[in-house]
Amino acid sequence: MVRILLILIALLPALAAQAQPSDSLVIRKIFSYCLEEGKSYEWLDYLSNKIGPRLSGSVGAEKAVAWAKMAMEAEGNGSVSLQEVMVPHWERGTKQELTAISGNEKKQLRICSLGGSVPTPTNGVSANVVEIRNFEELEYMGREKLEGKIIFFNVPMDQKHYHTFHAYGECGKYRYAGAARAAKFGAVGSITRSLTLSFDDYPHTGAMGYADSVPKIPACAISTKGADELSRMIKLNPDTKVELTMDCKTYPDVLSYNVIAEIKGSVYPDEIIVISGHLDAWDNGHGAHDDGAGCVQSMEILRIFRDLKIQPKRTIRVVLFMNEENGLKGALKYAEVAKAKQENHIAAIESDAGGFSPRGFSSKCKFPEKTQVFNKWKPLFEHYGIFEWMTKDGGGADINRLEDQGTLLIGLMPDSQRYFDYHHTEIDTFDKVNKRELHLGAASMASLVYLLSEYGVK
Amino acid sequence: MVRILLILIALLPALAAQAQPSDSLVIRKIFSYCLEEGKSYEWLDYLSNKIGPRLSGSVGAEKAVAWAKMAMEAEGNGSVSLQEVMVPHWERGTKQELTAISGNEKKQLRICSLGGSVPTPTNGVSANVVEIRNFEELEYMGREKLEGKIIFFNVPMDQKHYHTFHAYGECGKYRYAGAARAAKFGAVGSITRSLTLSFDDYPHTGAMGYADSVPKIPACAISTKGADELSRMIKLNPDTKVELTMDCKTYPDVLSYNVIAEIKGSVYPDEIIVISGHLDAWDNGHGAHDDGAGCVQSMEILRIFRDLKIQPKRTIRVVLFMNEENGLKGALKYAEVAKAKQENHIAAIESDAGGFSPRGFSSKCKFPEKTQVFNKWKPLFEHYGIFEWMTKDGGGADINRLEDQGTLLIGLMPDSQRYFDYHHTEIDTFDKVNKRELHLGAASMASLVYLLSEYGVK
Repeated sequence: MVRILLILIALLPALAAQAQPSDSLVIRKIFSYCLEEGKSYEWLDYLSNKIGPRLSGSVGAEKAVAWAKMAMEAEGNGSVSLQEVMVPHWERGTKQELTAISGNEKKQLRICSLGGSVPTPTNGVSANVVEIRNFEELEYMGREKLEGKIIFFNVPMDQKHYHTFHAYGECGKYRYAGAARAAKFGAVGSITRSLTLSFDDYPHTGAMGYADSVPKIPACAISTKGADELSRMIKLNPDTKVELTMDCKTYPDVLSYNVIAEIKGSVYPDEIIVISGHLDAWDNGHGAHDDGAGCVQSMEILRIFRDLKIQPKRTIRVVLFMNEENGLKGALKYAEVAKAKQENHIAAIESDAGGFSPRGFSSKCKFPEKTQVFNKWKPLFEHYGIFEWMTKDGGGADINRLEDQGTLLIGLMPDSQRYFDYHHTEIDTFDKVNKRELHLGAASMASLVYLLSEYGVK
Repeated sequence: MVRILLILIALLPALAAQAQPSDSLVIRKIFSYCLEEGKSYEWLDYLSNKIGPRLSGSVGAEKAVAWAKMAMEAEGNGSVSLQEVMVPHWERGTKQELTAISGNEKKQLRICSLGGSVPTPTNGVSANVVEIRNFEELEYMGREKLEGKIIFFNVPMDQKHYHTFHAYGECGKYRYAGAARAAKFGAVGSITRSLTLSFDDYPHTGAMGYADSVPKIPACAISTKGADELSRMIKLNPDTKVELTMDCKTYPDVLSYNVIAEIKGSVYPDEIIVISGHLDAWDNGHGAHDDGAGCVQSMEILRIFRDLKIQPKRTIRVVLFMNEENGLKGALKYAEVAKAKQENHIAAIESDAGGFSPRGFSSKCKFPEKTQVFNKWKPLFEHYGIFEWMTKDGGGADINRLEDQGTLLIGLMPDSQRYFDYHHTEIDTFDKVNKRELHLGAASMASLVYLLSEYGVK
């Protein structure tokens, strides 16, 4: 009798292993849980509507840090901490006005200052405007035709791309570097056509940067409707002038935080999987899609693992980065500390492409063969509409600071058609987010994190 | 010399065949054309905002017929005709009111009449309300507990389904057959929880039907918020009463039309490919997604084939059906005429699941092996996010009347997450449609139609 009992006890681990629900079952539970009981949407409502704008250095950003810490602590799954980081503090101010003047015609067109821009003089800057289609044209015109002028980079994003981020990638340089390139030839201001595929009257802000060797000139973005109007006026009258007034300002850097929650791995605690979004958002909207969505989806992981009783074998770390939008200081700090501590980040996932229906994952890695880990998992995701697995140029702006360390970098890829309708505008608000789409994104990330935590990156 | 010339001339057809752009190139052109120059969005703006509600039998429906004919004629690609069909004429009237009364508490809850319902008496019907979770419970309670009562079918759609149409499919019977099933036991009215996955205050209408053998009782749908509120009141007080007032009315059938445009096939004119949507839409909203989207996407085919100079080898026929929502009379008439004329419909595509990002195609066929025609074409669609090819229970409500004839029936499958937020409500309006998503749907249909017209269904 005792012998039989001993045999039965000896068999228990094997029985237990057999009794483990299959991966496909766990993933089904994760999706069902998110669709039925997910909290991301409720959290996003709070982050968007109660906190709202939260550019790094602002009061909103500090509120977001405090709220995220509290909300994750309230879940009681893992430890929550703040990681100190000094971040830029730029404020838009109250003036961002552009008047186009052609003969007797005066038109106010909708613009916004680009993040990091210097202001104009108090009374604005007034100059003839030169429309430019690409940097080659700028170089060709040279100082003779550009000195003292305001340069209007009117480069529409290419509608033909199915993946809208490709169109964004092509045009981003005009927003980021337009002012510096124009200043090299003595221009006194820079206007960039908003980076969007929609035709409307919302100017889209975003980061810009200066070059050390040339003067800093004010830089703004104009709505696509405004851009077409300005272009029309210039065509009719090449002597069209622009009056530009902006009172944005850069203040000294301030102390802020990445918010970090961690569940220790039960078998391989030293192998770390990061799940992330960025907590800061542009000041003109509520950052619902960019990137409130990514934050609340990452936070959701804590609840999923707790409520479905998934004990991760590897350490799971939710990181809500500060200052992705205008400096990446949070990401740089995180990577610096990780390196100093010689932490082993086997993988990192970022959701920073909106809270839309998930379609796949993008990835990249210093050791490209690591992306092959996905191959055997792909079929598990197909039922949920996840078919796209891009294995280069993927990841996310924050986590990609871990690239040197050989981490497998993964980006959640939602449907991208609507993203640039809202991106960096006053209409990036909670009402643009669909609850099920948001929760499907959280479920997709959680499912991949579950597999990574079970099997690692081999 | 002459001999060489003859050899060259003999080689010409082969050279020409080689010089044909590949299918993948044609499909790329179709997508680029739709994304850059598509007209669906502009058409949908007109159909939604200038015509709006267009339930069959209404003035709106007749305006829609005239407009669609004119708009397709203006494209000058193919012939346009009207196909006569007698359709139901039901009107919602001006009263659809529900008051729930529990002791001193009186609450007005948002409802709408279901299409085809009889009205209440002028002063309404007032009775105790019984909440029911499924038809089994109804049968179990029987006449004793249901006679003289108003039955409240409070069956939420199941959030767990990834494909929301599956959740809809499960609950549709309570809307369509609830009143008839309740009347069998002497109930005097029927309230159905709105068929939606969102929690809001919009009642969702839709078709219902009576049984010959039982009395016709008034039937309405209540918003999901209203349903939860009514359920709460009943739980607190099982003696809760409901006052229901509706003045909807059924009028005699009227003459209406399917609108049909055709481009004759250059090689196999007798092989017909139908591309379709339905022109009628519920009267409470603008039918932007259901099914303005499907109509304008179908109409777009005429422009694509003309502007890209694609001469279809097989006949392409755009059919905008009348009366899909409450009778399918247009579809039945079309199938009847097709059969009488012994027309050979090799395939039919319907877009009737909203103007969202396309994800795949559903299909079905009396000869299931015909669905294998897709296998070799699938890779051509993957770049555009089209990965899902369901090969049973597919097609669409209108085209499925051609099933007997062995036609390969195909439905465009867009992302379904948001569809039931708007479906059959006052918020199914133009602003809920994204231009790129709509145009991608048109491009997907056009691409498949191109392949069908080149290669047929073998």
